[in-house]
Amino acid sequence: MVETAPVRLDSAKTTATTHPHRVVIVGGGFGGLYAAQSFKGSPVEVTLVDRRNFHLFQPLLYQVAIGGLSPGDIASPLRSVLKRQKNTQVLLGEMTDIDADQQVLHLKDGDTLPYDSLILATGSAHHYFGNDHWESLAPSIKTIEDALEVRRRIFLAFEKAELEPDPDIRAALLTFVVVGAGPTGVELAGAIADLAYNTLKKDFRSIDPTQTRIILVEGMDRVLPPFDPSLSKRAAEDLERLGIHVRTKTFVTALEEDKVTVKSGDAEETIRAHTVLWAAGVRASSLGKVVAEKTGAPSDRAGRIMVEPDFSVPNHPNIFVIGDLAHYAHQGERPLPGVAPVAMQGGKYVARVIRDRLNNQSTPAFTYTDSGSLAIIGRSSAVVDLNWIKFTGFSAWIIWALVHVMFLIEFDNKIIVMTQWMWNFFTRNQGARLITGRDVIKSDSAFMKQ
Amino acid sequence: MVETAPVRLDSAKTTATTHPHRVVIVGGGFGGLYAAQSFKGSPVEVTLVDRRNFHLFQPLLYQVAIGGLSPGDIASPLRSVLKRQKNTQVLLGEMTDIDADQQVLHLKDGDTLPYDSLILATGSAHHYFGNDHWESLAPSIKTIEDALEVRRRIFLAFEKAELEPDPDIRAALLTFVVVGAGPTGVELAGAIADLAYNTLKKDFRSIDPTQTRIILVEGMDRVLPPFDPSLSKRAAEDLERLGIHVRTKTFVTALEEDKVTVKSGDAEETIRAHTVLWAAGVRASSLGKVVAEKTGAPSDRAGRIMVEPDFSVPNHPNIFVIGDLAHYAHQGERPLPGVAPVAMQGGKYVARVIRDRLNNQSTPAFTYTDSGSLAIIGRSSAVVDLNWIKFTGFSAWIIWALVHVMFLIEFDNKIIVMTQWMWNFFTRNQGARLITGRDVIKSDSAFMKQ
Repeated sequence: MVETAPVRLDSAKTTATTHPHRVVIVGGGFGGLYAAQSFKGSPVEVTLVDRRNFHLFQPLLYQVAIGGLSPGDIASPLRSVLKRQKNTQVLLGEMTDIDADQQVLHLKDGDTLPYDSLILATGSAHHYFGNDHWESLAPSIKTIEDALEVRRRIFLAFEKAELEPDPDIRAALLTFVVVGAGPTGVELAGAIADLAYNTLKKDFRSIDPTQTRIILVEGMDRVLPPFDPSLSKRAAEDLERLGIHVRTKTFVTALEEDKVTVKSGDAEETIRAHTVLWAAGVRASSLGKVVAEKTGAPSDRAGRIMVEPDFSVPNHPNIFVIGDLAHYAHQGERPLPGVAPVAMQGGKYVARVIRDRLNNQSTPAFTYTDSGSLAIIGRSSAVVDLNWIKFTGFSAWIIWALVHVMFLIEFDNKIIVMTQWMWNFFTRNQGARLITGRDVIKSDSAFMKQ
Repeated sequence: MVETAPVRLDSAKTTATTHPHRVVIVGGGFGGLYAAQSFKGSPVEVTLVDRRNFHLFQPLLYQVAIGGLSPGDIASPLRSVLKRQKNTQVLLGEMTDIDADQQVLHLKDGDTLPYDSLILATGSAHHYFGNDHWESLAPSIKTIEDALEVRRRIFLAFEKAELEPDPDIRAALLTFVVVGAGPTGVELAGAIADLAYNTLKKDFRSIDPTQTRIILVEGMDRVLPPFDPSLSKRAAEDLERLGIHVRTKTFVTALEEDKVTVKSGDAEETIRAHTVLWAAGVRASSLGKVVAEKTGAPSDRAGRIMVEPDFSVPNHPNIFVIGDLAHYAHQGERPLPGVAPVAMQGGKYVARVIRDRLNNQSTPAFTYTDSGSLAIIGRSSAVVDLNWIKFTGFSAWIIWALVHVMFLIEFDNKIIVMTQWMWNFFTRNQGARLITGRDVIKSDSAFMKQ
């Protein structure tokens, strides 16, 4: 490959002869994308680097996993989102290293990318608390590929159960354990219940999907720990009413193929379950380590970078870390949570800091505006805590749906997702329950040999 | 695994004590699914076996490949389609062998499936005319995984071009060769043109997607050989107007990474092209060989089984072969073409033959009703030949769209696909252009090393 800088902004399109201030953003999630969009019209040259060519609306990823939505419904091509922003270049690439002295990023394939200001927003990965080998036994849902793999496991479990003559194995195939009762775990368990007890009810001839057992395991003393206790209580009732077995103060102590061992107090129990899904913990993306090493920044136990009040890295005022990769401890008693609004607001704020600096202006301190929390429970219930008002049930479900559709980046997706939801809601059908991937049957045959 | 027959129809649901006539159908494409649906309410026990858990609407698969539709939009879970048909069991499985004397099918994993009547409808695979190693260099579009792989290649080509400083390599990255100008090849080439010259027009900063070169190669003397020559002429004009280079009487003689050699008359030319897509030939699915061996049935050069006038296999009146797997030479001068209507009508016919036999009635001879051919060319033109009337242009495009939506199996999909199309049409946007699959960047890096 020819050794020249890979990023060539068309010279006809840049008016200044000396180059404008170069902002490089790594990661096109909520933090990175909102930062990029905040530079619209600014006299800077923005480069957004992502390993994927799309922005993913992660809050709805579990819907892909249970076959309610297709990947395309919740993803927007980054180029498409930013096509009209002339000062912004999108680049498919993976950051591998950073040279803070030379102000240069290193990408996979040997390319380099110089920056004047750098915004790192590479997000989080799932966390197995030292048991990384559990990942293949109990997948999480962080990427589209994860979601399609989980979808494959869920629907293959029903297919195998239909073929299985041994009642014990059949029961294990129809047992689903979700580890972690935060919003993702609650939403996933609720969606599986809805699938088994409604959508698939009449689809099989040998098995009865309403016999499916769904167990939601949580280490804390209540479901939805970040929410108000009254909402946790209501959520637990809704889950139980859906037919889900909720087990709080319970930890996973061992995981084997088709077996999960849980401990509650001193009591240990081994559950035979073919499908175990992980929604328990997150850590910073692997890039956190590189950033900490190369900038000397301190990081927390989850690998998140401890940032300054303006989201910059200590001693590197032109490097910013936002979103799930950042540990922001300058507001409230606890660090800001790893949720989309924190990333969005952080992204907008650092864009403002950079613009203000170029204008020799100072920027007021960052204040996180917490507009509340939402979680959906099954087909038509949700809990919503807007701080000034809390509500549950169907009205909460409507709010949840509106908020989620509103934040879909492209109008295109809003239309499709609304259409799809209305259809799924009224028919209790979910059309995207496809088992895909090569060698559908072969790849999971190890299970059949037990 | 316990050695019992895996298919256990719930005894409470079958009223007769002696088992009813067992019909086993292998393959849930147009032929198999229409056959299964024709048994609705009949006093037979139907088992539909497929390797996949969904029916795929193949005529729109190229839309998945170019990011216009999501896989879920054109696939319907077989269980969902047949859920209300109480006499029908759907089974995820792969047929590996057939014992025509014992009337038993063998499935992967060692299960067996007895039948009284058997309908084989496993369709076709792509055909590289003895050059099977070309498959990885020039993929075809037969499955959802194929379509997503082609989508990945198309969009990665643009991404790599954006990063590529060498003008020759960049030109190769922006060159697309489609081999075969039947309906699939024409539709695919037209869709790529629409993508490059409209949808992606403003998405990049270093490259100009309107510089994309699209070459459509056809061995015959005209595009769309099965159509009336006047329509072929019009289609070729439409393709050229879209910016596609049409080369008829041209054959591919060699294929290497990023290079395709074509021969026209005595002239041979090597084209540098990163993306080569295959739409040239089909052969019977690999099961054809097993059927021919085990039943002694003759097969044609493409591996299709030569069937009797009632679609049965010679000397095996209770084994039927329909759809793309069958060579039906009892009507017209040429065998019936491998298109959806032939499969659908064949499926309905053999269901009727089986029902009539059970009632000791004879069945009138099969007559294929050819209602015409359609092909779409780019965003707003098509050619339609309804035999009694031919038309082209936008009105043909409307007919094409209505016919395709009409034949989508589920009402669910009809709504979503219509919404998606209208949106794509009016905005020239295509939201599903996601590059997916693990290791997006790494997996294609061989090219960058050249």
